[in-house]
Amino acid sequence: MPTRKVVFDTDPGVDDATALLFLLADPEIELLGITSVWGNATVETTTRNALYLAERFGYAGPVARGAGGPVAGGAAEVDPDIHGHNGLGDIDLPARIGMKADARPAHRFIIDTVRAAPGEVTLLAVGPLTNLALALREDPAFATLVKEVVIMGGGFGFNGHLGNVTPAAEANIGNDPEAADEVFAADWPLVAIGLDATMETMMSTDYLAALREAAGEAGRFVWDVTRSYAGFYRRTLGVDGIFAHDSLAAAYLTAPELVTTRAGAIRTVLDGFARGQTIQSPDTREFVPGAWAGRRAHLVATGVDAPAFLSLYAERMRQLAAG
Amino acid sequence: MPTRKVVFDTDPGVDDATALLFLLADPEIELLGITSVWGNATVETTTRNALYLAERFGYAGPVARGAGGPVAGGAAEVDPDIHGHNGLGDIDLPARIGMKADARPAHRFIIDTVRAAPGEVTLLAVGPLTNLALALREDPAFATLVKEVVIMGGGFGFNGHLGNVTPAAEANIGNDPEAADEVFAADWPLVAIGLDATMETMMSTDYLAALREAAGEAGRFVWDVTRSYAGFYRRTLGVDGIFAHDSLAAAYLTAPELVTTRAGAIRTVLDGFARGQTIQSPDTREFVPGAWAGRRAHLVATGVDAPAFLSLYAERMRQLAAG
Repeated sequence: MPTRKVVFDTDPGVDDATALLFLLADPEIELLGITSVWGNATVETTTRNALYLAERFGYAGPVARGAGGPVAGGAAEVDPDIHGHNGLGDIDLPARIGMKADARPAHRFIIDTVRAAPGEVTLLAVGPLTNLALALREDPAFATLVKEVVIMGGGFGFNGHLGNVTPAAEANIGNDPEAADEVFAADWPLVAIGLDATMETMMSTDYLAALREAAGEAGRFVWDVTRSYAGFYRRTLGVDGIFAHDSLAAAYLTAPELVTTRAGAIRTVLDGFARGQTIQSPDTREFVPGAWAGRRAHLVATGVDAPAFLSLYAERMRQLAAG
Repeated sequence: MPTRKVVFDTDPGVDDATALLFLLADPEIELLGITSVWGNATVETTTRNALYLAERFGYAGPVARGAGGPVAGGAAEVDPDIHGHNGLGDIDLPARIGMKADARPAHRFIIDTVRAAPGEVTLLAVGPLTNLALALREDPAFATLVKEVVIMGGGFGFNGHLGNVTPAAEANIGNDPEAADEVFAADWPLVAIGLDATMETMMSTDYLAALREAAGEAGRFVWDVTRSYAGFYRRTLGVDGIFAHDSLAAAYLTAPELVTTRAGAIRTVLDGFARGQTIQSPDTREFVPGAWAGRRAHLVATGVDAPAFLSLYAERMRQLAAG
């Protein structure tokens, strides 16, 4: 029985795809819609991929196309080295997708969906925060009607993880720092699942191979879609597996006990070589008054029970396979 | 038998004083000199305190007075709320100190001392890095003659500690970010013991009381000098004890196994609300080319064996008491 209404804002993206499967398998989640955003690939590609994933895995709800680049303008830089040229690890995709996108742009869809069920809708955002920032700009008051915002993004100074694109900036935040800072400034409850937790949660090749054997089409898909993504981590970090960043954020929705958190206002650095860095002012200590003043506290993930997450993910995939 | 020649650059400062006692008690350390710097108090006060501590605890080597404010100019802001108005927790101090400072300014003393024993001298710097930056500006080539630089400073994204003055800036680095960035740019082996490790190393009130009973005059001094400093931590963090930041950096000199470290180039943020933040580009992963390029790797402390440090500190204090 679904108890949690969710809009999934995503830039599929390999780990976005694995997170979507997890959401579809979670019996407590009612997925009200999927919104695409640029990031892991162009928005044309991520929208096509969102439609493809919805069709292939039987999601019949709306898919709305979102922003094609950062809120402040400028180039939408995309690195095909991580998620492949087609955004899904260069697996074979059909030439045409039957399903069509919603007529509304993503930020309008988000506002409409929240206003239709005030206080009930959670926004799960696992790409650049451009769509959420556009929604806030168009309708600032809608923020107070959102139940919760859960993002995958940032690095807050736990476990040695600050950035992955630069030493300071995590990719989602670094792709649109202005959007992120507006999202952190808004008056809604927000939880940031950053590199602090997601980089401590590796899905090893053995784990993924076991999923392939045990979890039917979903397991085989997760294996296939993660092959080139695993190659990226092997080349750059020398590890034998993948970091399923977005899936951990998805898991937080109904299993928040998987992560520990800390409360405090968050800022995003907008200038200089630290551009894109997220910095929390922890509520547990006093500082001289500064740039964090007047912002409400949000939660950041400080650690994760990785074995429990991996068990839960595998269980859900098996459930999905069992139908 | 001393095996490690050290110049101690310090802004006493409560935890500077406890670190100095530790250095004096370390049989492997030959203390070639003490240099004062502004920071925990004005340089007039920290120089007076360095001379007082030298005289009281029987150190007869040179004490050279250093910089009175940051290298880039501007105000030398001092907060009496932490180390007291006299920089030593407002314990009673004599009206006059017999010992006189060296005629040379600290940065000249540092250069002379290093050049007199090329490759043999370690610089232990536990205040703002102003003196070291001045030495580099006056004699850039001397850096390659330094055996090692060990600093207490920064916060690198482990254990949730980035800053203590602001959410981004640790006090020593935040007091003189330009100096710190020049020190991190120099071609010498450097180890930064930051909040990541020092904030995980609390000396509890019970621990300090036991020192008072077991370690003679040194133990009683450590107790007395830390009373108002402990009050600061009680008021601001709600803890029952102190963080002996500088003592951990001192301990690293001959007990490096107390901390774990990570290698990579370091930058200091100079602009905006993250001013004073230290960011390391870990050698363990690749990033897009950026502001860290061309800098040699330094080590940062990522964790600490706090019980082992506390045992070692207590043992040294008892040795000092035993004479």
